[in-house]
Amino acid sequence: MPTLVVLDLVGIFVFAISGALVAVRKDLDVFGVLVLAGTTGLGGGFLRDVLIDATPPAALADWRYLLVPLGAGLLVFRFHPTLGRLERTVNVFDAFGLALFCVAGALKALDYGLSPLPAALMGMVTGIGGGMLRDLLAGRVPVVFRGELYAIPALAGAMVAVLGTRAELPEVLVTIAGASVCLVWRLLAIWRNWQAPMPTGPASV
Amino acid sequence: MPTLVVLDLVGIFVFAISGALVAVRKDLDVFGVLVLAGTTGLGGGFLRDVLIDATPPAALADWRYLLVPLGAGLLVFRFHPTLGRLERTVNVFDAFGLALFCVAGALKALDYGLSPLPAALMGMVTGIGGGMLRDLLAGRVPVVFRGELYAIPALAGAMVAVLGTRAELPEVLVTIAGASVCLVWRLLAIWRNWQAPMPTGPASV
Amino acid sequence: MPTLVVLDLVGIFVFAISGALVAVRKDLDVFGVLVLAGTTGLGGGFLRDVLIDATPPAALADWRYLLVPLGAGLLVFRFHPTLGRLERTVNVFDAFGLALFCVAGALKALDYGLSPLPAALMGMVTGIGGGMLRDLLAGRVPVVFRGELYAIPALAGAMVAVLGTRAELPEVLVTIAGASVCLVWRLLAIWRNWQAPMPTGPASV
Repeated sequence: MPTLVVLDLVGIFVFAISGALVAVRKDLDVFGVLVLAGTTGLGGGFLRDVLIDATPPAALADWRYLLVPLGAGLLVFRFHPTLGRLERTVNVFDAFGLALFCVAGALKALDYGLSPLPAALMGMVTGIGGGMLRDLLAGRVPVVFRGELYAIPALAGAMVAVLGTRAELPEVLVTIAGASVCLVWRLLAIWRNWQAPMPTGPASV
Repeated sequence: MPTLVVLDLVGIFVFAISGALVAVRKDLDVFGVLVLAGTTGLGGGFLRDVLIDATPPAALADWRYLLVPLGAGLLVFRFHPTLGRLERTVNVFDAFGLALFCVAGALKALDYGLSPLPAALMGMVTGIGGGMLRDLLAGRVPVVFRGELYAIPALAGAMVAVLGTRAELPEVLVTIAGASVCLVWRLLAIWRNWQAPMPTGPASV
Repeated sequence: MPTLVVLDLVGIFVFAISGALVAVRKDLDVFGVLVLAGTTGLGGGFLRDVLIDATPPAALADWRYLLVPLGAGLLVFRFHPTLGRLERTVNVFDAFGLALFCVAGALKALDYGLSPLPAALMGMVTGIGGGMLRDLLAGRVPVVFRGELYAIPALAGAMVAVLGTRAELPEVLVTIAGASVCLVWRLLAIWRNWQAPMPTGPASV
């Protein structure tokens, strides 16, 4: 297995863990836990692939991409009290997943002929889309809209990857640079509890 | 009209009735009733077709597929107090719809070149996707996540259909076998009030 | 810039303003405001393009389509108390956006080979889809289901455009006729506070 596939599967696994934990907290049954694991792990890539016309998505053409969230979901279903206590650790791994996905998504969108700005957006969608679908299915407003600094590091990482590719830098360098920007920013946001700016002034009704 | 189209339209009709009843209970207007009828009847097939790249979906290429949920929606809009009392009957018909859709969806996904496991998943998505979209639009967590034994019979039926096709059994036999597995399991679940397993232990917050 | 692109961008801008105002009222952060602006402005077209297989959507192939909702979102983020007071004005502009989108969407669907009824439906989806996605992401049942007379004018305008095209009338005439039907009906609905019919009788539970 090439390194990139392993990294991809690790990212899916971590995202799937986060989705399954939300499902447990929302009192969903075993099927809800598995679907939220799958949606969170694979949903961002599905959204991107549907929008850039790369269907069927890779995850439907390779059974490993389906078994990883299944395994993550069953693990959480069985051991959720322990895993739930490790949330801070899960968040750190999640930042790695985000960093990988935003870069991989942006590079794939470029491959499919998108220009830089839309390609960077698709990178961000790849990173945050799974979590947004998770929250919709779990009946809550996406946490990514509620102050957590999550999407902006993903967009920044995707932009670095896009600009590096346009400058014809080697792909491995571009990947490392983009992923590092996203990862460091996101880890600092977790560590320092940085929040995204909120609108000021009274909200007229 | 070939038999399969008739069965397909019957499945869409029953799903559309269930969607329209949810809309009435949520105090939606006539348009909400019609949209929920259409989404519930056609949404699972739309999701499958978008993911396996069979767009535009069949329902957009054949006006009968649009008139059936329209008729179901208007029927419920006018006669919902009566139809609502027949819910148990509706549930039984709904099980027939589920059985047909999970098999038809899996066979179509195989036709479009998916391998067995993803094709079975697409069969399940065809069966349960409409109801999930209905619940999202109606502002509630999908009931299919809340203990009702609904998705697993659909997945089982789709798997039987996929395995039978791989064993090169005749399509009519494969269809009957897959649909029967889903139907019997689902009807037993309604009758005996079987529930999907829930996570045990305290949900850490 | 041809006139149609300008009109299209104006429609996206107005829809994006309405999405961003909802985000502010739901206490979302700057990123939520921008995503709701983008989703409301572009979501209807995305849904249509994914369903009729016109991917990647136009908005991902032309950076102006991304900058307009970005600008609208930032404007609302900064000046929302003022803009919120102008809601009635925003609603009138929104009616123009709806009129343009339902016609443009229907004509595009015809171009992609859909027959009249599905093409009219796709026109309606183009007009109302962005607002539906906005409401889903903001955690509320789509307002278009709750009595406001919004979708039916869009469907009527799309149907006029489809029938005019089938009658081989010139495109400019068809566009003006379809958009006028939708616009006048919608403005009258705002002005006279017309509501869509609700189901009558008790909703059985």
